[in-house]
Amino acid sequence: LEAGENDAVYGLVEGLHPADIADLFELLDSDERPALAIAISDLMGSEVYAELNDYVREDIVEQLPAETVADIAEQLDTDDAVAMLEDLDEEDQQAVLAEMEPEDRAAIETALSYPEESAGRLMSRDFVAVPEHMTVGDLIDFLRDGRDLANEFWEVFIVDARFHPVGTCALSWILRTPRSIALTDVMQRDQTLIPVTMDQEEVALRFQKYALISAAVVDADGRLVGQITVDDVVHIIQEEAGEDVLLLSGAGEGDINEPIRDSYVARVRWLIANLATALLGATIISSFGGAIEKLVALAALSPMVASIGGNAGTQTMAVAVRALATNQLTRTNTTRILLREFRVAVLNGVTVATLIGVATALVFSNPLLGVVIGTAVVVNIITAGLAGVVVPVTLDRLGQDPAVASSVFVTMITDSMGFFAFLGLAVASGLVG
Amino acid sequence: LEAGENDAVYGLVEGLHPADIADLFELLDSDERPALAIAISDLMGSEVYAELNDYVREDIVEQLPAETVADIAEQLDTDDAVAMLEDLDEEDQQAVLAEMEPEDRAAIETALSYPEESAGRLMSRDFVAVPEHMTVGDLIDFLRDGRDLANEFWEVFIVDARFHPVGTCALSWILRTPRSIALTDVMQRDQTLIPVTMDQEEVALRFQKYALISAAVVDADGRLVGQITVDDVVHIIQEEAGEDVLLLSGAGEGDINEPIRDSYVARVRWLIANLATALLGATIISSFGGAIEKLVALAALSPMVASIGGNAGTQTMAVAVRALATNQLTRTNTTRILLREFRVAVLNGVTVATLIGVATALVFSNPLLGVVIGTAVVVNIITAGLAGVVVPVTLDRLGQDPAVASSVFVTMITDSMGFFAFLGLAVASGLVG
Repeated sequence: LEAGENDAVYGLVEGLHPADIADLFELLDSDERPALAIAISDLMGSEVYAELNDYVREDIVEQLPAETVADIAEQLDTDDAVAMLEDLDEEDQQAVLAEMEPEDRAAIETALSYPEESAGRLMSRDFVAVPEHMTVGDLIDFLRDGRDLANEFWEVFIVDARFHPVGTCALSWILRTPRSIALTDVMQRDQTLIPVTMDQEEVALRFQKYALISAAVVDADGRLVGQITVDDVVHIIQEEAGEDVLLLSGAGEGDINEPIRDSYVARVRWLIANLATALLGATIISSFGGAIEKLVALAALSPMVASIGGNAGTQTMAVAVRALATNQLTRTNTTRILLREFRVAVLNGVTVATLIGVATALVFSNPLLGVVIGTAVVVNIITAGLAGVVVPVTLDRLGQDPAVASSVFVTMITDSMGFFAFLGLAVASGLVG
Repeated sequence: LEAGENDAVYGLVEGLHPADIADLFELLDSDERPALAIAISDLMGSEVYAELNDYVREDIVEQLPAETVADIAEQLDTDDAVAMLEDLDEEDQQAVLAEMEPEDRAAIETALSYPEESAGRLMSRDFVAVPEHMTVGDLIDFLRDGRDLANEFWEVFIVDARFHPVGTCALSWILRTPRSIALTDVMQRDQTLIPVTMDQEEVALRFQKYALISAAVVDADGRLVGQITVDDVVHIIQEEAGEDVLLLSGAGEGDINEPIRDSYVARVRWLIANLATALLGATIISSFGGAIEKLVALAALSPMVASIGGNAGTQTMAVAVRALATNQLTRTNTTRILLREFRVAVLNGVTVATLIGVATALVFSNPLLGVVIGTAVVVNIITAGLAGVVVPVTLDRLGQDPAVASSVFVTMITDSMGFFAFLGLAVASGLVG
């Protein structure tokens, strides 16, 4: 299809929604993407670029002259333009900025001056703000006259003389109110203001908690500088919530469009960390070499004890990491959650230990071996339950993202405890020697 | 604080946002919750109930008389009322419905007739739809007159005589357009219509992809029956994206407010499944009992080979599960992703195998042992990379949720392959006997 028949391709793509065109690029091999971009260059509106996956966009944007990129950026809302430019090299970025209109360039440069993943990068500078003295009628006339208005707005912000937000008015209330009424009589005074430096994850939680459609962004002096709309936040909620599974597994960003080299670097780090923790387990087993020589069954069974503990630890850890990420697990209820996980661990431990203990006793015709493995499993599942809460909570209090490193520590604890409890009990109980 | 001083508590809680009051309940022990509900009963508006965690709400709602629950449900939007009632027992649900106004009851009964987690449960029946012949002025007059209008709406749906949606008009366009213009001239004809039976996860993906604020829901005949707004979808995006980490870890729903019994049942199933897969590993080790008796180091090292493979498998699996959940991994690019993961696995495998092989050769002064473990690690990491894609993709094609059972299969594959490759190579290479 890609072999020359550009007109046919154009015909097929024409009429698709920009988000669908963006999807089409992601499905293609990376070497086919520039060809498609050329075949349908008329259809490559700025919206298509806004919808593209970061890595795919970088592929395509790097091929384009700075002038073309600048044209596209000028048509986008500030937040989308920033998303497009922030991934470029310093040099390319400067080249594109130099080609832009001074006003647009200033807006993007200001946005780029805020920290990555902050509200300042996310906000759009296009919003509707009006003074306190306006009536509903004045506002409607102002909107009907307005040329340079925001593309999208769902509420109007009312500001005082110093440009501090004093209230907000959903468009539906304005439409339902007679022209003569003052805006200050219909506006809602309580509103969620987002500081410009707030982390995007926190912004997303606010939107979710208070069911916001848009929110005013204020600078350090409390002046209105931008608005964030929910459609930009939806991506973040998805990313942040989906990120935990990737981080916990040690897969880094885990985007299937990420270059192979980046994936390799992100993942091999955690495999090496895992190697180090596995080494600890191997050392513990080695130190019980004498016991294993006497009873080879110990070698076959000890990985089971470690693996079941690891599994139980992963369960609790996943629950704790999600609860931390959604602000459900806080200082006030940590003890309660720890107690809760302890109870679940006791129930799980006793159930699994009974199964494995009885089965081992029967298979090896050795009741004492059954008691030893059962006890070790209970000990390890309870350890896992506690470690699954304590490790992520501790990382969180130390200001680390609990999803990033919890796995390594929890696995280290459950592996070591599994081998040590099982082999140690085997020796202490007089099972061997 | 809870000991009697209800007035003081009332004073503290007064003035909080309903979402914050709901959070307060979640932080309390479950036996303290009813006391708080009584202390602040005046403040327990329907919004607070809408914001409560499902389990916490059930705790409180079960204590209330059916009449009170009916009053609360009548004040809520249909979707929130349905969320409150759908968790009750059949009997309590009927009792509450019997106390409701016929009209509200009918709306809720219809919603409950749609499948769980479908658009029909999620939609609100309160929306604004107007006929095609209206002008902007007619619409504004209609809205100003309207008494029984939706609490919240962000766009107006334009319908034909059969109540089929023909277009949609964002409120901002209406406000910016002169009164005399016909709605059909400002409306957008292309709109995303949501079938009433669509799964909520699919609804969430549509909202995200097309950056929707609200969308019309249509029945099988194409008639407009409700609207879904983005604030209800945000919860679903969060839940569905966060759910994967919990499902992959075998923690079930993994809500920290879930009753202990439910958590126990959800988790112990997976621990038992894990037991069965670990048994397979133990059997493989047992069958190499003779080799282990001759070289105890094999017992210490074989769990390392299995564990590193498990880790690599989990990384790839997390990436594949997220890519499937976000519709990035489809039939058209499965082969490409498989090849990509194969390449990453080869790089990872060679790096980790070199480290572990050299270290083993040195520690045990046994170069052949180093070669054997290195080769086994490469084989297992590549197996893990392929299994991490193939297992979730296969489950997905069989119509299963790949997040639910992938872990068990992938772990089984990497454990067995780890033990078998390492111990098998040890024997085949003549390292032992």
